Amino acid sequence: MREFRVLEIKESIFEDNNKDAQELREQLKSENTFLLNLMSSPGAGKTTTLVKTIESLKERLSIAVMEADIDSDVDARTISETGVKVIQLHTGGMCHLDADMTRQGLKGLDAKGTDLVILENVGNLVCPAEFDTGATKNAMILSVPEGDDKPLKYPLMFKVSDVLLINKIDVMEYFDFDLDLCIERVKKLNPNIKIFPISAKTGEGIKEWTDWLYNEVKGE
Amino acid sequence: MREFRVLEIKESIFEDNNKDAQELREQLKSENTFLLNLMSSPGAGKTTTLVKTIESLKERLSIAVMEADIDSDVDARTISETGVKVIQLHTGGMCHLDADMTRQGLKGLDAKGTDLVILENVGNLVCPAEFDTGATKNAMILSVPEGDDKPLKYPLMFKVSDVLLINKIDVMEYFDFDLDLCIERVKKLNPNIKIFPISAKTGEGIKEWTDWLYNEVKGE
Repeated sequence: MREFRVLEIKESIFEDNNKDAQELREQLKSENTFLLNLMSSPGAGKTTTLVKTIESLKERLSIAVMEADIDSDVDARTISETGVKVIQLHTGGMCHLDADMTRQGLKGLDAKGTDLVILENVGNLVCPAEFDTGATKNAMILSVPEGDDKPLKYPLMFKVSDVLLINKIDVMEYFDFDLDLCIERVKKLNPNIKIFPISAKTGEGIKEWTDWLYNEVKGE
Repeated sequence: MREFRVLEIKESIFEDNNKDAQELREQLKSENTFLLNLMSSPGAGKTTTLVKTIESLKERLSIAVMEADIDSDVDARTISETGVKVIQLHTGGMCHLDADMTRQGLKGLDAKGTDLVILENVGNLVCPAEFDTGATKNAMILSVPEGDDKPLKYPLMFKVSDVLLINKIDVMEYFDFDLDLCIERVKKLNPNIKIFPISAKTGEGIKEWTDWLYNEVKGE
């Protein structure tokens, strides 16, 4: 296993997180670093998708990863195997990251000059949607086994996301998941969202998703 | 569709939730009502499991359900079809319920004299674990597609649960899920937890689970 750091991040002392997030976003832009905030339920496949994303892009972009979790470092271990720089952030029981916590993570990661930093947020469809991390773009993953009704139940998460990956499409036939209905529900909440059906396991759809991400990072 | 009420519950004003929860638990005991707090990730199958549980027990026990959600009433609609009394609780963006919020729900449900009240908590593996609702027992569902590493990443949820349902075992062969390893990880966190592998879809394991629950409610 490669080396990585584990950082206990502190609750933010800033009252105005939205302002703080905007400042962080502008700072990252001036440094030419694209920060992607990746959110989902537990078990939707964030880490596996991240590994495939890194494999697809690491020859073209410099990449670093921040793994946020309540506890454990299993995800940072997995990501470290891809060879990119990674830090494990422990949130001390908190179910989200705000902009100042993200800034603490970036400082700990020491990723200045990196093209793309990916923040794997805490596995949760509620709290992370409520706090702007200062990321350049928000991505979320919904996996087929979770069901096509999730946009109805967790609307804010779908509203704040710029891109939605519908993962585990390789097992679609074993679940009652209506892809068209799901997309219709999501678009009703967020007409401009980009949607990519993928299977992080088989690799289906990964090229379309990472081509889009590459163009976003390069500002094309 | 049958009628049910939608209640906007307010954030608790009590500072000491643990004390408040203990009082609620004792009150429910004196009223011979068993309150089951059901927790899981979004999409693990709480509502489907609940429908199967109600079908299996409703001839033997009087049952009522409180559906907690950030938004929407899709789950209360589904449950109302089973014929039991149901109320939809909206948490106003909050990702958990504490004892006072649970008490508001019970009051709105008007379920005095009911043998078994089931609270379907907000879909989340983090926040609900941190707040004692005053329930008689805590149950959680982990579904096979979420992965066998979840006890490592959300240990508190597994520690506070009295019973774990491992759901969607009908799709086990399509996922890399090691049931023995998962159980070993859970037992390490919580040696006394009861574990039932089930499929709410096919009905497998539902009899074992509901027999256990019936005996708990009846105090046998």
